Amino acid sequence: MARQGYSDGRLAIIAGRGLLPLHLARAARAEGEDPFIVALKDEVDHRFDDFESISVGVGNLAAIEKSFRDLKIGRVVMSGGVARRPEWRDIRPTFKTILKMPSVVRTLMSHGDDTVLQMVIKLIEAMGCTVIGAHEIAPALLARLGPLGQVSPTGDDLRDIEKGTEAALALGQLDIGQGAVSVGGRVVAMEGVEGTDAMLQRVAELRQSGRISARRRGVLVKLCKPQQDMRADLPTIGPSTVESAVKAGLAGIAVEAGRALVLEEQAMIAAADAAGIFVCGIEPSLDHGGLQ
Amino acid sequence: MARQGYSDGRLAIIAGRGLLPLHLARAARAEGEDPFIVALKDEVDHRFDDFESISVGVGNLAAIEKSFRDLKIGRVVMSGGVARRPEWRDIRPTFKTILKMPSVVRTLMSHGDDTVLQMVIKLIEAMGCTVIGAHEIAPALLARLGPLGQVSPTGDDLRDIEKGTEAALALGQLDIGQGAVSVGGRVVAMEGVEGTDAMLQRVAELRQSGRISARRRGVLVKLCKPQQDMRADLPTIGPSTVESAVKAGLAGIAVEAGRALVLEEQAMIAAADAAGIFVCGIEPSLDHGGLQ
Repeated sequence: MARQGYSDGRLAIIAGRGLLPLHLARAARAEGEDPFIVALKDEVDHRFDDFESISVGVGNLAAIEKSFRDLKIGRVVMSGGVARRPEWRDIRPTFKTILKMPSVVRTLMSHGDDTVLQMVIKLIEAMGCTVIGAHEIAPALLARLGPLGQVSPTGDDLRDIEKGTEAALALGQLDIGQGAVSVGGRVVAMEGVEGTDAMLQRVAELRQSGRISARRRGVLVKLCKPQQDMRADLPTIGPSTVESAVKAGLAGIAVEAGRALVLEEQAMIAAADAAGIFVCGIEPSLDHGGLQ
Repeated sequence: MARQGYSDGRLAIIAGRGLLPLHLARAARAEGEDPFIVALKDEVDHRFDDFESISVGVGNLAAIEKSFRDLKIGRVVMSGGVARRPEWRDIRPTFKTILKMPSVVRTLMSHGDDTVLQMVIKLIEAMGCTVIGAHEIAPALLARLGPLGQVSPTGDDLRDIEKGTEAALALGQLDIGQGAVSVGGRVVAMEGVEGTDAMLQRVAELRQSGRISARRRGVLVKLCKPQQDMRADLPTIGPSTVESAVKAGLAGIAVEAGRALVLEEQAMIAAADAAGIFVCGIEPSLDHGGLQ
């Protein structure tokens, strides 16, 4: 209870894979913050030389709690993917945390991403911090509704958006994944733990081997899970997603407007326009994703 | 109407990928049949030297219809996978067939596997033949309920069977796929058009890279789609499935009892027993797949 007063204290960014953590750190600094970076070992793939930071294993809660206390951290953002699910024997909580969270080990051993993220949020809140969403620091990163570049989806693409959305929603409801690729009205690939880029590479290979028609293009759909907490890891796209989509021969990318993040939007749109593919924000609950 | 009399005529086996067509041809011969093999070009991966056969492209209905008429084919079994979805411009139906099937092209262009297979069944029936299921020729190939070898699933495996079943049923309802892998109570991979072996190879790679825990084993679940016609391509396992599951570090394989085919059962069970993994038939609608 003594630390409750820090709830509007210094900002910490827990940094996993990908570009998002670095973008967030810079966006936060631009807003006058002095973010402290908790770089997750074996996950972080960028350097944070300009920022105060520590490097810790995913499960090392004791080290995280100590630094949060020492630096008077009040707000925490989780950003970037965590590919390696922490093992229960990797988790080193303090005795106090264990008393607060008797269900930690069981949760880590059995549930989907969403449940684990909820647990991590509760653990951080038990340290006396408030967990906020990346979009609260950098709202401009949220995908807008409609086409982001010069290209818009056409009739066949709208059907693929519909099919991909149907699949992504079903996967999301089961807390399995958030991405699917539909080609010619048929879902050909679904995203498990391999991630979006690996799924798109698979589509590219299936295309080359003739197992996906070369005559139909197709769409990548990435949605938030229906029950997803916006403070957890949101679906993210950027220039590399466009590059992978082009290699997979797709006509475009559809992401959930207002609940997905777009990194390096200008570079991404330039790449999409140059390749002639669309990138658009959709509203899954509306007919045709709200595009018509 | 003139050809109705052939409905108990000679047996034809339409042969796609994998070992099933050859096993069926041999099983049929053992039952006193003289099966005629329609080997689908670019799909068949075994030779049928001992059998009368033709090799045709997937869409060449005119050639298939001619041979069926010439050889007085009355019953037809479809067997083996067809990786390459026929393109509308590959389909060469007779004019008569087109008159009977105005929706053919639209179906091929837009729907899932199940719809396409239903259409193929209707096209063959329009030639005056009866389409029967592989299990009607070789009922012994159907998976039995319960463990097939010496190893049985244990507590953790039963939970993975449950999670994998949940995912496979959801995919099946959307007519997307029939397989999923669950590890530690979490679905890590779902089967799209890449097929079971490719999905298991992905799991093996994710395991090697540390993105799937090395400490938990996991289960492959393969189910029939809920609405699947038994005359269409049933889920199939065999020795190569066991080999792929072992490489993926899985504890075992669960398939739908009575609605999945087991090829080379003795060799498969020997391989599974030697590797210490289970292979079992489950009843998806029952608690714990009917195993407890």
